[in-house]
Amino acid sequence: MKVFIVFAHPEPTKSLNGALLRTTVDELEAQGHEVQVSDLYAMKWKPQVDRDDFPHLQPDDRLRVAYASGTAYQTNTLTEDVKREQEKLLWADFVILQFPIWWYTMPAILTGWVDRLYSLGFAYGIGEHSDKHWGDRYGEGKMLGKRAMLLVTVTSWKEHYSARGINGPIDDVLFPINHGILFYPGFEVLPPHVVYQADRLEEADFGKTAEELLHRLRTLSDTKPIAFRRQNGGDYEIPTLMLKPGLEDASAKGFSLHSSKAEETRSSR
Amino acid sequence: MKVFIVFAHPEPTKSLNGALLRTTVDELEAQGHEVQVSDLYAMKWKPQVDRDDFPHLQPDDRLRVAYASGTAYQTNTLTEDVKREQEKLLWADFVILQFPIWWYTMPAILTGWVDRLYSLGFAYGIGEHSDKHWGDRYGEGKMLGKRAMLLVTVTSWKEHYSARGINGPIDDVLFPINHGILFYPGFEVLPPHVVYQADRLEEADFGKTAEELLHRLRTLSDTKPIAFRRQNGGDYEIPTLMLKPGLEDASAKGFSLHSSKAEETRSSR
Repeated sequence: MKVFIVFAHPEPTKSLNGALLRTTVDELEAQGHEVQVSDLYAMKWKPQVDRDDFPHLQPDDRLRVAYASGTAYQTNTLTEDVKREQEKLLWADFVILQFPIWWYTMPAILTGWVDRLYSLGFAYGIGEHSDKHWGDRYGEGKMLGKRAMLLVTVTSWKEHYSARGINGPIDDVLFPINHGILFYPGFEVLPPHVVYQADRLEEADFGKTAEELLHRLRTLSDTKPIAFRRQNGGDYEIPTLMLKPGLEDASAKGFSLHSSKAEETRSSR
Repeated sequence: MKVFIVFAHPEPTKSLNGALLRTTVDELEAQGHEVQVSDLYAMKWKPQVDRDDFPHLQPDDRLRVAYASGTAYQTNTLTEDVKREQEKLLWADFVILQFPIWWYTMPAILTGWVDRLYSLGFAYGIGEHSDKHWGDRYGEGKMLGKRAMLLVTVTSWKEHYSARGINGPIDDVLFPINHGILFYPGFEVLPPHVVYQADRLEEADFGKTAEELLHRLRTLSDTKPIAFRRQNGGDYEIPTLMLKPGLEDASAKGFSLHSSKAEETRSSR
């Protein structure tokens, strides 16, 4: 398959993240897959959406990001860097976002990769928009048929991200990304691969960490995606997009309402 | 009081966010408060953390962001733009982060404001670190005694962010910011002020939106903060930082475990 890895760490060679990236690329290529990597720092990726993203705007025009991105997408006037990344997404069968969790989300450079790539007409604002079908999103969209996965490092302990841990459960911390950024335009989302206590990891311990990652990479085709509910699949009232009563597991609440059989698919590492 | 507003929108004059900012500044100044605004786009804020943030590093040094930021903070060699923003945080009694929610989090430019300001020794890595006290964080830290609040716009309907809405409850979507970025270094966090369906708002409707915001700004001193649990206040096992059994409301789960009397303080707009 065609694999697209988006890498967002400022130290490509001497970091744990750099070592995890090399392990991933080597393993996937050894399996016969074709791999492209976007190293956002090496590419000097521009993180912020601003007027420079929309050359068609006149100086006096009000910048409305959604509409400007839609016009630029439709008229093929998005900037070249954005077009190249959108092409890679369309090319890929499988997308990996790799990053260290900083302040409970992605580093700014990766947040800005999403902000700039996810144009109106590319990632949202697609398909029928009616009382029965609220756009092709959350399980439908241009990424339909592709899979995606997060590969992340955190400095905290695994317990701190457990069901009762102070940081919140890791699946909830990553829900806005897994559900709101990946599932939204149509990706099937595999459970994340999380490396805990990343800053305490000594080189001598890397073998075990690498083995765990290799195991994930060797079992990708057997890994069930997170069972997020499709927006237009019948589980939601439209247009309020509220989950219909009685569909959830007894214990589900908040983010966990939005996957079925939550106990089966929420990552248990 | 001294109010510091961090504004992250690329259209300062003709946007709803611009109008909300002007309403906020005018009202707070009319109340006699001193107001500083950091307009991140106007400042051309650099979003990404990279080697340029740490001039003390030699070209061959491994870039470890946490340690590099700690050294730069302690030796007063952080870049001038970062130092200025840290000073504003220390100056303020009340901090407002204002932004449009893009892809379920902050725009990249604001994510990067946090990534670059929150140095080791400034926002974390402070205080006793033992089996009884896991650092001064989550309710303790340099921001102790200050309050903070999010002022955000979203394009979705309020129902889409309700308890059963497909985007997840707004309080959960904002939890990583309210709890992980504001409460973490010691802020008391007021419930967010959220403006829904922002892109459909016509100028004729701005009066009502402005009135709702003014009401919030005129009742700040009466507004109870979100009752997040203090990490070192006795509710958590240390060092696992897991909530002790039996403390939560019967219905609490996930993020909502980490505030007490959740029903009273979770925003009800």
